[in-house]
Amino acid sequence: MALLTGAEVAKHNKADDCWVIVHGKAYDVTEFLPEHPGGTKIILKYAGKDATEAFDPIHPPDTLDKYLPKSKHKGPVDMSTVAVEKHEESPEEKERQLRIQHMPPLDQCYNLLDFEAVAQRVMKRTAWGYYSSAADDEITLRENHAAFHRIWFRPRILIDVEKIDMSTTMLGTPCSIPFYVTATALGKLGHPEGEVVLTRASHKHNVIQMIPTLASCSFDDIVDAAAPGQVQWLQLYVNKDREVTRRIVQHAERRGCKALFITVDAPQLGRREKDMRFKFTDQGSKVQEGQATDTSQGAARAISSFIDPSLSWADIPWFRSITKMPIVLKGVQRVEDVVRAVEAGVQGVVLSNHGGRQLDSSRSAVEVLAETMPVLRELGLESKIEVYVDGGVRRATDILKALCLGARGVGIGRPFLYAMSAYGQPGVERAMQLLKDEMEMGMRLLGARSIAELTPALVDARSLANHAAPPVDGLSQAVYEPLASPAQRPTATEKAKL
Amino acid sequence: MALLTGAEVAKHNKADDCWVIVHGKAYDVTEFLPEHPGGTKIILKYAGKDATEAFDPIHPPDTLDKYLPKSKHKGPVDMSTVAVEKHEESPEEKERQLRIQHMPPLDQCYNLLDFEAVAQRVMKRTAWGYYSSAADDEITLRENHAAFHRIWFRPRILIDVEKIDMSTTMLGTPCSIPFYVTATALGKLGHPEGEVVLTRASHKHNVIQMIPTLASCSFDDIVDAAAPGQVQWLQLYVNKDREVTRRIVQHAERRGCKALFITVDAPQLGRREKDMRFKFTDQGSKVQEGQATDTSQGAARAISSFIDPSLSWADIPWFRSITKMPIVLKGVQRVEDVVRAVEAGVQGVVLSNHGGRQLDSSRSAVEVLAETMPVLRELGLESKIEVYVDGGVRRATDILKALCLGARGVGIGRPFLYAMSAYGQPGVERAMQLLKDEMEMGMRLLGARSIAELTPALVDARSLANHAAPPVDGLSQAVYEPLASPAQRPTATEKAKL
Amino acid sequence: MALLTGAEVAKHNKADDCWVIVHGKAYDVTEFLPEHPGGTKIILKYAGKDATEAFDPIHPPDTLDKYLPKSKHKGPVDMSTVAVEKHEESPEEKERQLRIQHMPPLDQCYNLLDFEAVAQRVMKRTAWGYYSSAADDEITLRENHAAFHRIWFRPRILIDVEKIDMSTTMLGTPCSIPFYVTATALGKLGHPEGEVVLTRASHKHNVIQMIPTLASCSFDDIVDAAAPGQVQWLQLYVNKDREVTRRIVQHAERRGCKALFITVDAPQLGRREKDMRFKFTDQGSKVQEGQATDTSQGAARAISSFIDPSLSWADIPWFRSITKMPIVLKGVQRVEDVVRAVEAGVQGVVLSNHGGRQLDSSRSAVEVLAETMPVLRELGLESKIEVYVDGGVRRATDILKALCLGARGVGIGRPFLYAMSAYGQPGVERAMQLLKDEMEMGMRLLGARSIAELTPALVDARSLANHAAPPVDGLSQAVYEPLASPAQRPTATEKAKL
Amino acid sequence: MALLTGAEVAKHNKADDCWVIVHGKAYDVTEFLPEHPGGTKIILKYAGKDATEAFDPIHPPDTLDKYLPKSKHKGPVDMSTVAVEKHEESPEEKERQLRIQHMPPLDQCYNLLDFEAVAQRVMKRTAWGYYSSAADDEITLRENHAAFHRIWFRPRILIDVEKIDMSTTMLGTPCSIPFYVTATALGKLGHPEGEVVLTRASHKHNVIQMIPTLASCSFDDIVDAAAPGQVQWLQLYVNKDREVTRRIVQHAERRGCKALFITVDAPQLGRREKDMRFKFTDQGSKVQEGQATDTSQGAARAISSFIDPSLSWADIPWFRSITKMPIVLKGVQRVEDVVRAVEAGVQGVVLSNHGGRQLDSSRSAVEVLAETMPVLRELGLESKIEVYVDGGVRRATDILKALCLGARGVGIGRPFLYAMSAYGQPGVERAMQLLKDEMEMGMRLLGARSIAELTPALVDARSLANHAAPPVDGLSQAVYEPLASPAQRPTATEKAKL
Repeated sequence: MALLTGAEVAKHNKADDCWVIVHGKAYDVTEFLPEHPGGTKIILKYAGKDATEAFDPIHPPDTLDKYLPKSKHKGPVDMSTVAVEKHEESPEEKERQLRIQHMPPLDQCYNLLDFEAVAQRVMKRTAWGYYSSAADDEITLRENHAAFHRIWFRPRILIDVEKIDMSTTMLGTPCSIPFYVTATALGKLGHPEGEVVLTRASHKHNVIQMIPTLASCSFDDIVDAAAPGQVQWLQLYVNKDREVTRRIVQHAERRGCKALFITVDAPQLGRREKDMRFKFTDQGSKVQEGQATDTSQGAARAISSFIDPSLSWADIPWFRSITKMPIVLKGVQRVEDVVRAVEAGVQGVVLSNHGGRQLDSSRSAVEVLAETMPVLRELGLESKIEVYVDGGVRRATDILKALCLGARGVGIGRPFLYAMSAYGQPGVERAMQLLKDEMEMGMRLLGARSIAELTPALVDARSLANHAAPPVDGLSQAVYEPLASPAQRPTATEKAKL
Repeated sequence: MALLTGAEVAKHNKADDCWVIVHGKAYDVTEFLPEHPGGTKIILKYAGKDATEAFDPIHPPDTLDKYLPKSKHKGPVDMSTVAVEKHEESPEEKERQLRIQHMPPLDQCYNLLDFEAVAQRVMKRTAWGYYSSAADDEITLRENHAAFHRIWFRPRILIDVEKIDMSTTMLGTPCSIPFYVTATALGKLGHPEGEVVLTRASHKHNVIQMIPTLASCSFDDIVDAAAPGQVQWLQLYVNKDREVTRRIVQHAERRGCKALFITVDAPQLGRREKDMRFKFTDQGSKVQEGQATDTSQGAARAISSFIDPSLSWADIPWFRSITKMPIVLKGVQRVEDVVRAVEAGVQGVVLSNHGGRQLDSSRSAVEVLAETMPVLRELGLESKIEVYVDGGVRRATDILKALCLGARGVGIGRPFLYAMSAYGQPGVERAMQLLKDEMEMGMRLLGARSIAELTPALVDARSLANHAAPPVDGLSQAVYEPLASPAQRPTATEKAKL
Repeated sequence: MALLTGAEVAKHNKADDCWVIVHGKAYDVTEFLPEHPGGTKIILKYAGKDATEAFDPIHPPDTLDKYLPKSKHKGPVDMSTVAVEKHEESPEEKERQLRIQHMPPLDQCYNLLDFEAVAQRVMKRTAWGYYSSAADDEITLRENHAAFHRIWFRPRILIDVEKIDMSTTMLGTPCSIPFYVTATALGKLGHPEGEVVLTRASHKHNVIQMIPTLASCSFDDIVDAAAPGQVQWLQLYVNKDREVTRRIVQHAERRGCKALFITVDAPQLGRREKDMRFKFTDQGSKVQEGQATDTSQGAARAISSFIDPSLSWADIPWFRSITKMPIVLKGVQRVEDVVRAVEAGVQGVVLSNHGGRQLDSSRSAVEVLAETMPVLRELGLESKIEVYVDGGVRRATDILKALCLGARGVGIGRPFLYAMSAYGQPGVERAMQLLKDEMEMGMRLLGARSIAELTPALVDARSLANHAAPPVDGLSQAVYEPLASPAQRPTATEKAKL
Repeated sequence: MALLTGAEVAKHNKADDCWVIVHGKAYDVTEFLPEHPGGTKIILKYAGKDATEAFDPIHPPDTLDKYLPKSKHKGPVDMSTVAVEKHEESPEEKERQLRIQHMPPLDQCYNLLDFEAVAQRVMKRTAWGYYSSAADDEITLRENHAAFHRIWFRPRILIDVEKIDMSTTMLGTPCSIPFYVTATALGKLGHPEGEVVLTRASHKHNVIQMIPTLASCSFDDIVDAAAPGQVQWLQLYVNKDREVTRRIVQHAERRGCKALFITVDAPQLGRREKDMRFKFTDQGSKVQEGQATDTSQGAARAISSFIDPSLSWADIPWFRSITKMPIVLKGVQRVEDVVRAVEAGVQGVVLSNHGGRQLDSSRSAVEVLAETMPVLRELGLESKIEVYVDGGVRRATDILKALCLGARGVGIGRPFLYAMSAYGQPGVERAMQLLKDEMEMGMRLLGARSIAELTPALVDARSLANHAAPPVDGLSQAVYEPLASPAQRPTATEKAKL
């Protein structure tokens, strides 16, 4: 077949006749335009042109093959005939490139927060916006980390802590340390290779990776990147079309996934205003779109329209019927639902508020944990279910606090994304190593030689549910105009000016 | 009748012979001068001149017809003969105009606080001062919003939340969402059309509007602006002259108002120092007026001298006798008075501290709500009265918290004024739409499909009455001079200077 | 007697032969030098010269007559022969004078904190330092005001509050409002006329003034400044020499003082580091005085060496024997001592920590009040003693809170000093009027028509003893160096510089 | 023996042939290189050169004699032949020297925090980094001081406090005031003479000094610096080789040490990131060292590799067998371990978290004290053991609070290091004198005449365990990007630029 030329494709540059080039092939997306979850406008920007660069971070590579009918595949393009858009680098981008040149050497990062500091400097604003943003006033986002500071240690002394064993098992899988890489979307926003970077680093450190439904890489690419024997879990957004869900789950099980984490805190994906704000571009005129409040809501909304808000407890038996993988509910937020999860026969729960990205004012997972475990113990259900937490974990001391309070393990998401975005795989590996170093020291100083010795008596969590001083709500503070003392009277000069 | 000329009017430019022009007609206000609630000085500034621009935001258009005897109406003026004051635009005003030119497009406002940010930039200082100010140190003002952050959610998961129904009824009126536009004074300070802007936006979104006694528009104009079937309530400051009050109430009922909200927290209107401060103009010399502490106290005091401080529980039966509208007491601040309101046979209460504008150090309405509902339930009075709250509501999550704690609905005031002042009716409509969008998402994420499912179990409000970290008192902090570390000794150069 | 000439006096300008001129008379202070409580150095600065300006604010005018033997009085000086020191005005002083020129008109001060803001700008640094400083880290100083913000109102509505009566009696004296001007030292630091300014303003407003032992004016001058019938109280630092004390007390009683307030919280006057810091002057060389930690400790220490640290409960009967005035213990800080005061037969206590100037980390008076009154009620002692509080009162709402919690009245000190220092008597009068206006509005909005109606049910003080978020310790915060994120690597240019 | 020349030594400047000069003698450290706890790199920097200046602050002078075989001692060097490195003074160092020239005179330091402020200005960054840093987010570091502010005084009045006796005994030793100089490492970083400066100042004020294992001076130098009868204690890091430990302990006892403080909170020395950060030097290229997270971890790690992490309760009897000195466990952090310490037969415990340098999120010693003493009293063990606290003490009021809560005495470390670093011995002496002055005043104002009168009734510590508002975690706050209000639209000029 003769290659298409750029000129030929360029003719189809209108809403009612729209082709785009992706990875050297042309596609007719005219009919698909109104259905595009990310909106029409973003595609039209590339009508008749090469859209690869914008396409890649948001879509797994097999997207077009999967979702666009073969008849719309217009065939390969002679890329030498396609006009290369010359990106005039914006001043902002030039500054970012300069910041990248001068970023600190990796070994100057001493903790997980350091990676976040560096990532903030070197990531593109939109990528940073997508990763770092959270719901509404981002109060839960900050509470997630802040909650750990209301838990204090009660270390034991004079314990022989020469040998520290921080290994554990999670859902039957032995792992080197009780954290896993939790699922986060759109890895290619931060690094051109995307989630496989996390896969490789996880293998190096023998930690478990949870594969996200909304990965930039395709599911199979991520599984392929795993080493033999490396354990991965599947995070699942449940599709309105249950057959699609069944195929995804059973494919994952066949490919060797060892657990199914069903996200239950996202019947609708949250609005993250920081993310939306970063998309702002002056459109030249004052557009008063009135009711159209749901446009340009950032990457998250664009990619999630398939998620089923009707998912309910009634669906759990069906999930148990289609897979033998252990099932874990991700996003549980109250003790009543943990008890119900036991009754529903699932193997685990992740106490989580989705990194503060869903319902603002949700409590931190670690606070829900402190509410949950005494009840489970009282009901004799402690051993019936594994309880995980995620959100706000930045230090091994955070992990230790969660484990003392009864968690089986903790999930860590954003910090690894930041490490990856700033330094690639070596960054992620160093982040993991730092956690291991901190963990070893923390257990030693706490007088705990093994995970089993991390008990509630080692912490004082009495202030955990005390919310007398919640995180500051920035927007509200920004618009409050402080009271003023009486002004001096103007001088003669100042008066003359008036 | 021959038209008056500007020159003729201009002769009457003294305190003992004072005419002013309003909307093209001349009035002799000489005798009225000492009674003017806003003071003599402000009128004298316009003696013999056109006062329309200053008159309009503060007075409903029918004021002069109502309150000035016909004999003082001097007749229409040939406005072409009236010297047009040339306003030299102040540098401050020029900057404001520039800010208006560059204000963000409406669709960049993602939440109610965004409107406040924009309004702060584009409103006149005095208008901003009147709307945004509150009593004393404005601690209650900030507490009103801050209190919501001491309430945390306990969301339910795996509820089929595909369909969300946020409609409810308030005082028997069905409405699309459980908030109403509460009464706020002087709408024309923010927008030339005043309160009718809110009327039209309320209709568009099927929410109830409460008409303020102190509106800039006349009561009838606001009612006329309503669409057929649109529900409005009347907010009432009770006049010392009860006949005036009776006329107002019965007129409102005839015009179709569906409820009477009697303000009970304002026997005297609060002193708002920020508002007063904005009125400051250097008077050229150091005037030490000694005891005269009650001058220039801002718009609020000027317009409220008629309010009756003797209003008491004994008056309630009389109100019940003059109207069939449901009666609601607006401004209740303790559970004892809610119980008493039930006994008094009224249909509702609004827990409110008047937006922090009356007694500083009053508790937030939502804290009073948490005190109130358990008592009502214990006394079996829960269904005998509808309990509303207002103050500090900025997010749908705030509404949700109030409803979980037992409120029937919430009133929202300032945010709509800000939206109106910045963007007019489209602004108010967008603000309402944003609340609806937030509300739908909030209910979905909370696992509540209908208003009835919003129950106390969905929140953790144990820290609500914990005031260990109250809002900062700005003035006190401003005058405190922090301790200093020992100063370095001066260098040779510095010494030489001394 | 022939007048001395400046030249004659100027000869006596050495430590072993030291005369000074005060108010036109020469005094030989050679022998007195080592006993001067303020230190030798400050006198030697004026050896042979006119010391009046430095003498005045610190000493009552009758000091030299009282304490220096007649033989040392060298007689009147012909002041025309005394060389006038030409003060080269320092740049700092010039700026202060400029600030004074542009200070806001009095009617721009809307509350007590405004006077403090103005006073801070226009007072001399040393005077400001003496008035505003407090002990150690000034945590109690700030807690005094902050504590009021942990008390919240529970206002009653629908009370006929047309008439507000805020009059009360204190120790049998009727007064217009339940506050008094408490004793503060060295009034002439702030105003050339000193304490009599407060006397006159107190009369105008019918409030009681407490006369300080350490006044700049003489006791008799202050009494003489009172109008007929004006009530004054005496504040007493007890002298080691009880005869001196007896004379002071009995003289005060004869002159009409109506109560004796014995200061019991100052066996040693506090170290106020801000005050000390302001005295710093570079002495040209690095003086390492080793143990001499007690030099230049500010005005307070200089004037207080006579105070008896051995004062104890055993002395109370003696006081009761020498005067018929009611006795009040000023500076009580725990309920146990209030009960003991009742047993000791005194008529009142002032719960006070001396404005935070004595023991840092002392609790606020209002917190001690909340601890005290329930115990007194339980013991049936409530009516046996009048309980006053002082410290941190800035708003009428503060007064109202104290009265609701059971105080008979509150003392206010610094705010009147600031008003006096900035605006003289009109300032103090306006400050009092502002409090009255605030008080009237506060009672009206609280639904309390008289002092008797101010009851504990009107406040929620449950958070008062909650010290989870104490005032920030400024020095400690200043020396803490925050952690840093990894630094960017230097650019080529920066490297070149290194 | 002929002196070596600089040239001869300079030949041995490679990793496989490495000599260094220390105090005029050459040493062959080639074989020792890989074992150097501080790493190879730092030695190689001085290969073939004079290393004295870098060697001194980190190593006691007898280190080489003790640990390097005689055969490696190459003998004295003719120092006149050694090339003097010309230090080009860095701009940063020049600025520091300027700051030193202008440092405030000693008598301008009014409290312990003042010394810290001055030290921060005049110390070398690395020394400041080592002294001031703490573990992880330094939250425990700040909590240590902050905790004292949640304890409030309840002073007694009318006690005859003319005579104040603040003397006490600690472990049988009478001392002038209940604090001791606790052990801190590497004194020569702050002052060229090191720990002996503290020895001499301690003698002057009759306070006890605890000699650190990790002193810069040799143990014997410190003992030799003591005056006859001056009491010193030994702080011990227990060596993996118990014979080394036995020798140290028995040598100390022979030399007159009066107590043995075994550090039990440091099985591994903490990571202090601020300390590490200060060591950062750009190494010219981006070194991605991957797993090598344990390099350049600051002074602390370098000097502590000998410490035995297997130390346990089982070792206590052995310690009791090798010495007659009273044994105190330093670093106990929970009441259970205090009780166990009594059972183990030791004479005391120091409640301590090692100045916040070990496990971040550990509670303050004073909070553990408040947990401990009631339990001891209940168990009747109060008199069986002496309980000390250290960490965060900056004011005599802090000491008083600890003693009221039951402490026998408090340890103070960093403040004396800062005083020494800034002003040498006179600085330390003044710091001690200031504490004595504060203590005398504090006891007087508290109404306590002697240490025995410091009882729990004098404090209100109910908020001490309330952690609603923990210290801010700086790194986390630094990386959080606040939400923004909608941006203004660009002006024409700004657009042109874009």
